[in-house]
Amino acid sequence: MKKILVFGAGLSASYLIKYLLAQSKKENWQITVADQSLALALSKIKKHERGTAIELNILDKAKRATLIEKHELVVSMMPPALHLIIAKDCVKFKKHLVTASYISPEMKKLHGAAVKANVLLLNEIGLDPGIDHLSAMQMLNEIKSGGGQIESFKSYCGGLVAPEYDTNPWNYKFTWNPRNVILAGNATATYTENGQLKFIPYNRIFLQTETIPVKGYGLFEAYANRDSNSYIKPYGIENTSTVLRGTLRRKGFCKSWNQLIKLGLTDDQLKLTNSDSLTWRELISALLPSSNRSVEQNLCAFLGISKQSAEFKKLQWLGILEEKKLGIAEGSPAQALQKLLQEKWKLNKGELDMIVMQHQLTYSLNGKIKKRISSLVVKGENEVYTAMAKTVGLPMAIAVKLILQNKIKARGVVIPLTEEFYQPILKELKKYGIEFYE
Amino acid sequence: MKKILVFGAGLSASYLIKYLLAQSKKENWQITVADQSLALALSKIKKHERGTAIELNILDKAKRATLIEKHELVVSMMPPALHLIIAKDCVKFKKHLVTASYISPEMKKLHGAAVKANVLLLNEIGLDPGIDHLSAMQMLNEIKSGGGQIESFKSYCGGLVAPEYDTNPWNYKFTWNPRNVILAGNATATYTENGQLKFIPYNRIFLQTETIPVKGYGLFEAYANRDSNSYIKPYGIENTSTVLRGTLRRKGFCKSWNQLIKLGLTDDQLKLTNSDSLTWRELISALLPSSNRSVEQNLCAFLGISKQSAEFKKLQWLGILEEKKLGIAEGSPAQALQKLLQEKWKLNKGELDMIVMQHQLTYSLNGKIKKRISSLVVKGENEVYTAMAKTVGLPMAIAVKLILQNKIKARGVVIPLTEEFYQPILKELKKYGIEFYE
Repeated sequence: MKKILVFGAGLSASYLIKYLLAQSKKENWQITVADQSLALALSKIKKHERGTAIELNILDKAKRATLIEKHELVVSMMPPALHLIIAKDCVKFKKHLVTASYISPEMKKLHGAAVKANVLLLNEIGLDPGIDHLSAMQMLNEIKSGGGQIESFKSYCGGLVAPEYDTNPWNYKFTWNPRNVILAGNATATYTENGQLKFIPYNRIFLQTETIPVKGYGLFEAYANRDSNSYIKPYGIENTSTVLRGTLRRKGFCKSWNQLIKLGLTDDQLKLTNSDSLTWRELISALLPSSNRSVEQNLCAFLGISKQSAEFKKLQWLGILEEKKLGIAEGSPAQALQKLLQEKWKLNKGELDMIVMQHQLTYSLNGKIKKRISSLVVKGENEVYTAMAKTVGLPMAIAVKLILQNKIKARGVVIPLTEEFYQPILKELKKYGIEFYE
Repeated sequence: MKKILVFGAGLSASYLIKYLLAQSKKENWQITVADQSLALALSKIKKHERGTAIELNILDKAKRATLIEKHELVVSMMPPALHLIIAKDCVKFKKHLVTASYISPEMKKLHGAAVKANVLLLNEIGLDPGIDHLSAMQMLNEIKSGGGQIESFKSYCGGLVAPEYDTNPWNYKFTWNPRNVILAGNATATYTENGQLKFIPYNRIFLQTETIPVKGYGLFEAYANRDSNSYIKPYGIENTSTVLRGTLRRKGFCKSWNQLIKLGLTDDQLKLTNSDSLTWRELISALLPSSNRSVEQNLCAFLGISKQSAEFKKLQWLGILEEKKLGIAEGSPAQALQKLLQEKWKLNKGELDMIVMQHQLTYSLNGKIKKRISSLVVKGENEVYTAMAKTVGLPMAIAVKLILQNKIKARGVVIPLTEEFYQPILKELKKYGIEFYE
């Protein structure tokens, strides 16, 4: 019997735990789910005979260590900052670890120790990063082994609301961590275009966008995501002249979001000392240059838009011109905005989310330029088994199975770029309706 | 005999140490100057019989404590982040402390303990903050005691190059910490205008400026400085409808500086992994949206300026369009910009700096609106005794004298707002040519 330990029983862990329990008899697994809320852990186990729920404060060093020591493999669904302490325990007790998060510089430093301990610390095996790596590497390797030379690689992904429930002027609802959405792009993005290094600072990340059509789903737009160039070497595309990773929103979203940035509403440093009594209209007025005009007229003049424009209507719809209290205690504009958007962009009961991913590859073969566009659209099943939980949790869960079946040879701090990952994982994902079409 | 300990013998300490040594006989002082460079400390003592130079690593806890224990009063000219550990020792050993820095939240927390130890931790007693407090409070109290009601309070200060040496198109040279200049305004500014709370986010702090004429010195411009509103209560101007503190530059500077921000050159987060081989022209090209035009044409189109404009000439003069290596190892654009500007905006041997400060007060008296404008201009004496070192060091040094003469009753974590500070300090500053005119 092999014992699996899952840290965290939140929304993102739903599908993962469901899969692990479903396979537990056949694979002879025992699954422990540890969360700070025992009730939450219990709700995910659903009295399954091979599941155990445990209440745990992850910062309780002794209890955490004892728990890890008793299992063969650990899955961390905790916030990224907490992976490191878990990873260190995993190296110490020689247990494999699986996370869906970007490798932090501190995690990277564990590579040598993990190899020495013959342990796999597998990261970036969710959706983005995760399925993007698997599917991109499969395409890249197919083209290369057919003699093609990759000229351009572009990869886009977004978590959105399913079209049936796309009912607000922003065409967006929260389907994942709202704070990450508010602070997204809050750093200079890096990519490569036509052999040229490119940077986009925060003040225009949401202005320099591309339009991305997805067959059957209409138009999206993409803004540059973090450091695309850091994937050039791992992907083996050093001679590719364009390399860009982007985040997808519905067409029209980014221009309006940039207006919120320009206003100063995504600033997370400023402490609004009077935020309990301040209204949205007062905050907007405070952020605008002084004027004798109405707040509406002043806002339109500042942004260079008309009161009849779609942009103005989006802003108005948010309620930022209303005499409504911010309702936060000593917070930043970004925190106030998050609170407002969590009401306005709420995915309501019964509404479904949608994941959209697209790779655009241009390559030369026998002197001809060819193009492949591969897309993935996944809709949520219900409020618990969302598209996001499914596309993050399933690749993780399948990786867990492969590791425990001794089918993965990689050791150390790893991201899933090789055939031993993408071949079996992409194959099994198809059974669950996660399939790219070209 | 009273013993004074000065931590830090850098440029900013020159005038302070000069004053303390000059008064040491009359006041019966012994002065110890501790610096990580013994040579630097020795160069400031100049073999004065009442001065001692000591080599000290300020992080050496034991040595620092022993030293503090042996003195009556401590002056910290160290970087602001190091004041706290010194302040804690001062409370422990019941020694007074004098610094020219803004009170940090951590420093503020020592207030109770400092009062209990009957110790004065005096901060913000340099130029800005420092002389601005002293002179503003004197004016405010004069007007109030004459029955006036303050309607508007604006206070500006800038460290610039003296007009005789103002020889570049930016009309600016570094006379103080270059890094602080590069990252200035890198947070939302807060002030009050006509009874309205106002915020200016970083993306337009250098656009929303005011023009400030200073008699005999031409035009300056001011951008909003940090949190002006935090001084409303300490200054006792709760019923004043406009409260603004600003930083002065020469007219035309801010618009061009904002172009550097818009380009992304003040970003301090992005790590340029290839910064050793990257040229300035390549960096600018990377930061601009893609185009087939020349970098010059692309830059002008992006900024909406012509190649004949003063703005373009300022940028060109910096050399950011040249095929010149950044010359930094794995740094940020802000670090690269700092390196470039330290060459371009260097105050050369023999060149002098200049301090400009101005308060603009509007008040109502007997139903009439009156205005007082009070200005201060100080030029440097030479490369060591700069205007900045003089205006920062002298108020500190005079405060030291007053404290040791038992003329200051305040205890705890204090900024110099009361008459016991401004009356004697402003009076003595006049003897050194630091005098406001209206």
